[in-house]
Formats: sequence, C-alpha cells, structure tokens
Amino acid sequence: MARIVMKFGGTSVADLDRIRNVAIRVKREVDAGHEVAVVVSAMAGVTNRLVGWCQELSPLYDAREYDAVVATGEQVTAGLLAIALQTIGVDARSWQGWQIPVRTDGQHGTARIAAIEGAELLRRMKIGQIPVMAGFQGLAPDNRITTLGRGGSDTSAVALAASLQADRCDIYTDVDGVYTTDPRIVPRARKLPRITYEEMLELASVGAKVLQTRSVELAMKERVRVQVLSSFSDAPGTLVVDEDEIVEQEIVAGIAYTRDDAKVTVRRVPDKPGIAAAIFGPLAKAGVNVDMIVQNVSADGTTDMTFTCGKSELPRALSVLDNAGKIIGYAEIATDKDVAKISVVGVGMRSHAGVAGTMFQALAERGINIQVISTSEIKVSVLIAAEYTELAVRALHTAYGLDA
Amino acid sequence: MARIVMKFGGTSVADLDRIRNVAIRVKREVDAGHEVAVVVSAMAGVTNRLVGWCQELSPLYDAREYDAVVATGEQVTAGLLAIALQTIGVDARSWQGWQIPVRTDGQHGTARIAAIEGAELLRRMKIGQIPVMAGFQGLAPDNRITTLGRGGSDTSAVALAASLQADRCDIYTDVDGVYTTDPRIVPRARKLPRITYEEMLELASVGAKVLQTRSVELAMKERVRVQVLSSFSDAPGTLVVDEDEIVEQEIVAGIAYTRDDAKVTVRRVPDKPGIAAAIFGPLAKAGVNVDMIVQNVSADGTTDMTFTCGKSELPRALSVLDNAGKIIGYAEIATDKDVAKISVVGVGMRSHAGVAGTMFQALAERGINIQVISTSEIKVSVLIAAEYTELAVRALHTAYGLDA
Repeated sequence: MARIVMKFGGTSVADLDRIRNVAIRVKREVDAGHEVAVVVSAMAGVTNRLVGWCQELSPLYDAREYDAVVATGEQVTAGLLAIALQTIGVDARSWQGWQIPVRTDGQHGTARIAAIEGAELLRRMKIGQIPVMAGFQGLAPDNRITTLGRGGSDTSAVALAASLQADRCDIYTDVDGVYTTDPRIVPRARKLPRITYEEMLELASVGAKVLQTRSVELAMKERVRVQVLSSFSDAPGTLVVDEDEIVEQEIVAGIAYTRDDAKVTVRRVPDKPGIAAAIFGPLAKAGVNVDMIVQNVSADGTTDMTFTCGKSELPRALSVLDNAGKIIGYAEIATDKDVAKISVVGVGMRSHAGVAGTMFQALAERGINIQVISTSEIKVSVLIAAEYTELAVRALHTAYGLDA
Repeated sequence: MARIVMKFGGTSVADLDRIRNVAIRVKREVDAGHEVAVVVSAMAGVTNRLVGWCQELSPLYDAREYDAVVATGEQVTAGLLAIALQTIGVDARSWQGWQIPVRTDGQHGTARIAAIEGAELLRRMKIGQIPVMAGFQGLAPDNRITTLGRGGSDTSAVALAASLQADRCDIYTDVDGVYTTDPRIVPRARKLPRITYEEMLELASVGAKVLQTRSVELAMKERVRVQVLSSFSDAPGTLVVDEDEIVEQEIVAGIAYTRDDAKVTVRRVPDKPGIAAAIFGPLAKAGVNVDMIVQNVSADGTTDMTFTCGKSELPRALSVLDNAGKIIGYAEIATDKDVAKISVVGVGMRSHAGVAGTMFQALAERGINIQVISTSEIKVSVLIAAEYTELAVRALHTAYGLDA
C-alpha cells in the first residue's frame, strides 16, 4: 500500500472520453489498495482561450482578474473527473484551491505555494474518498484566487505530494517519460528509467518541456519521488529521484536544445572595471533574463560583450541598452536570432573529466562553430547557428554513447 | 445620487464586444454619480455546454460537482467585465459567490440564498470601486459551491439589491421591458411603464420568461424596485413596483401563454372522499408539479379527474398513476400534449367584476373551447387546444383594450 498523487495534464483530460479514461486509471490504483489523490489541469485549449480573452480586453489586464478567470479551467476538470469517478463506483470529490486551501503569496499570475493544508484531504483518503484537486491555483493572503504560472499544475501536484507525505507523485502527460534527447530528432533516443533531480532540473531549464522547472525544484527540496509517464500507454515511465537511488549512474543523462534564445553582442565597450555592471544592471532591473555571458579578450582598450536572452525579451533588452548607451559607451549592437543552445546534462560530470572536451570535439568534426560556451557543475551548454541544431544533437547523442 | 444594482444576462455578455458594451453602460451610471454594483450571468451558451458535459458523464451526476463545474461560467464573465471596466478607467473588481460570501442552503442545483454579506462591497462602493458579482451561485454551509437553478442570476441581483438597500435593481436582458403580451404574436402589444410585483409574479409563473419567478418573489418580499430593460437599446424599461406606486391601475396588465404543459385525465374514478388525496398525494411525493385541477360532476358514482403538469414531468406522472392504479381504481388515463394555457393577469381584477366573463365571451366568439379553468385573486387561466394559442391571445388583447 502506497500513498500516490496522480497528476493529469491538459491533453490527458482534453475531452469527456479522456476524462473517463483517467477515471479508469485512478480506479486501477485504488483497486490495487493505494491511497490516491488526484490533481488536474484544464482541458487542452481552455487555458489558452481564457488567457486570450483577458489579453484581448486589455494587454495590461489586472493579474488578479486574470487569475480569477483562468483558474476556472481546472475547476471544471476537477468537477467533471469527480463525476466520472463516482460513475464507476469510486468515491471522489473536487477541491478548488481556496477550499483546501492551497495558500500562496500574492504574486498574481506567478504565485508561489506557501503551504497546502492537507489534513482534511488525508482524513478523507483514509476512509476511501479520492480528492480531485484543481491544479495551477491557490489562495492569496487577501482571499483572492492566484495562479502559479503556465505549467503550474505540476507544481501543485508536487506540493500536494509533499504535504501528504506521499510515496510518489505520478505526472501523467502526453510523453511516456524522460528521454536521453528529443525522439523526434534522434529516433534512437532511449527512455531513462531514472534521472536525478539535479539533471531533471537542468534539462527542464534548458528546453526539455516534460516538467515545469519549479515543480522539479520543489520536488528536490521536499524529496518528493516524481514519476513522469503517459496517460495513453501502460509503459513504465521515468522516476525522478535522489542521486543515491541510482546505482549505475551514467556520465551524461541527456541532451537538450532550445531555439528560444537570441544573441546580443555589444561591440567595442571600454575594457574597464564596472562595465559589466553598467550593462547587466539595467537589464536585470528591466526584468530581462540574461542567460549565457561571454566577454572577449581585450584589444586596444575595448572589448566585445556577448549575452543571450529569450527571443521575446529581445526588444526590451535592446531598448534598455539604447537608453544606457551613453553610460556604457559602445560602438554598435549586433543581434542574432538564428541561434540554438545545445546542452549536455549529467551528474556524472562531477567525477569525470573530459565531458566538455568530447562535446567540442564532436561538434568540430561536423564543422559546427561554437559561439558561446557556459557551464555548470553538471551541464555544458553551447550556442551554435540554429541550422545545425539537429545535426549537433545527433552527433552528441552518439558521442556520449546514448544511442539505443 | 442613487444606489443601483445592474444585472446583465447571458446574451448581454455573449462575447467580448458585448462585455465592452456592458462596461460602457456601467460607466455611464457611475459618471452620473450613482453608486453601482454589477451582477453577471455566464456568457450565452456556456452554462448549457457545462451542464451538457455533466449530463453526458452521468445522468445521475452529483449535484455538488455539477455546481462546482457550472458556477465557473459566471466567474469568467465577472473577471472579464472587471478587466473591461478597468480598461475604460472604472475601478472594479470581481467577486465570486464564496468570496462575498453569498450564503445559501445546501440544496445543490436549486439552492436558496440565506444572506448576502454586503458590508465590504458597500464600503468599497462608497470609495468608488464597482463590485462585479458572479451571479447564480453561493456558498453552502459545508463550504461547497451551490447554484440557484436556471435563471438564478436574477435572484442573485435582487438579493444583492436587498442586502445593499439599493434604490433599484436594473435587470438588463434581450427584451426592453414587460409587454402586455408577446409582441411576436401581437404586434400592437404595448410596453408597460410599470407593473406590480403581484402581476409580474403571476406573469412569470404562467409563461412570461422575462424574470425568474423566484427573483420576483424575493423582490416583492424585500420591496426591491426592479427595472427590466434592454442592454441593446436606450429605451426606458418596465419598473416592477409596489401597487401604491402605480396611480392609474389598469384592470388587466398582461396576457401570458405557455405551451409547456400537458393535460392528464383520470377517467371514471370512484366519487368518494379521499380520492383526490389518493391521486395527488403520490404525485406530490414524486415531485410532480401539478398546476390546474378540475373534477367533473359525478355520474353513476364515478367521476373524471383532470390535471395539468409540465410536459417534461408527464412520464413520471404516468408512472406514478400506474403504480397507484389499484388504490385509486380508475377505468383509463387519457393524456393530451397539444394544449396551451392562456392567462389574463391584473391586480385590477380584485375590484372589478366581469373580467373572467369577458375572457370566456371573447374565446367563445372565436369558437375556442375551454378545457380547464383556474383562477387566483388576480389571474384567470384557461386551457385550450394549442392550435388556437395565437388567436386566443390576440382576441383577449383586444377584448381588454390593451392594443396600442
């Protein structure tokens, strides 16, 4: 007997037939003797429609009203799934964020969960009633509805699992696990039976769209065992666990890519102390999320400063640099949106030398030029021309021995 | 300066353009110096879709889950209208039923409002913030969401007006007032500038679909002045008020009709004490709403008992009679669904004789046979063959001098 939180994403509850299918999956776990709580997303497409309405009424909509409108999507799914469960003989009831309550801060649109008061849910689970919680939402200190940001239902599920001290948090989605890379690019990509929190976190933050980054952070902090699996198949998924739960750790767990970044080069800035602060201070103040940064070796008293940020943030970044131009004193700004960031992730890097070298070698052999490099303890990322994305991913997948 | 509750129905908020239009109407009242609170329905079609989903999952759906699902429609509209108001410079915020709260009993699907705690809304209205309340919903004693039954947003609005001691409750809908009869049948029908609660109540309960019956009951009980008007025109509407506010009272205020009833005749039941109880007791127990009842004069120790009920309730009524057949002891059951109920309503009847006589005379002149008659203090209703509906309504409209 285990205690399990099951979370179903938008495609898994896209219509009534799929909701019935989800009910059957839940019943299966209940019949196996487990204590089960369920978290649901909005039916696929619903959130986009609601968001679209808010934006159409006002691009500068009140985030508190946006939250009130958008949170209804999950509320509908929770009620419908409760009915579907009851119909097949499973005692169930829906819970909206404010009813539990899921307490959050007051940061509307991107609220963070402070606490989930799970005692009443647990009491009901023990007498066989399945709570179906509307994901993505909570209650602000001033009694208004908050939402957690796109993909927030993953975080709802992990937070609920932590609150209930669940043995596992199963995230049902439209892929059946975490792969060594995108199978659409590398057909020989392998599904990982296990992956560490750290690796999953790096993969989520560099483009793998399986789990919301914040949900992985929370799972790591609260030590919630997360399983990613498909609601459309019975194949075993990928377990996201603590490093010491993985006996045979591979050096590289996976390869991720993203084409969502743009490169900005500030040319011929004076090479003197404080120049980085003069550039990146105003950017940070304006909320531009700067990722990779590289500073060229100085020549004749000036240097080039290159960084990347999200493509959608590029106009804002350029406007900031334009305003700060007098203080910084640069010759020109060059931008490039045709770039891709390729990342190699694995906790094995900590104890193995030469991982970055293998990457550079493999790319060099295919004639792929590296524009920017950044590294973390368990990750190496490079920026390359976007047209080489697939070639680079395939080359690296082979170079690290990940091919099935 | 007046305090006004403005309520907008589903067709008035059917899309974003109409929601913007509603915002402009609200702003106009605000600019005129009034204290305004708003109540909204779900966007046209939304409630039907949500109800359909529940029914499709289970014809015997859990009414508590149905309420959680269906109440989201009004929540969306409230948030969107708040955004639309802010966009044109009006301070506004949405309120869901549980936030105010609108306290109801626990009768899910058809809950009754116990109290609306309006103090906080009033405080905000006094500093210029417009509350936009999601109609149709409330909070049960066990902290679950309730809904008030179809058309319940009218009742929400009247209850809010009572709680806020508003000077008026304006119900914006797709017709611009209450007419002497259906203008689609009688083009010369006149819009009534004023009508009494009692008349409105009788008209609403016999087929005029302008206001939910319960909302009129509540308005009468709490003495809330209700105005019915169109959100698509600037024409003045109809005021529903106390009798003493109407100086020149006409004898007949309006003529209503409904084709939603069926006639059931139980033939040759023994004419003895207790027989009516034997028939109508089980019907009431089964929740069948019996309207008109007529018992024939006895012949050879038996009599015929005729009654009407909603067409949708007919199968249930017949099943009840079938089960109770042995106890009642009847020869046969005859049913007729091709009937219409025509009602003449007016508080002037109390002091004027001959109103029913005028009705019977006018129908007789057109060769229309009356099948059943029922009367109240301010109403005369007759059941006729459905094919004569329009002819009867037109004849009566002329006979009572209501033609424009």
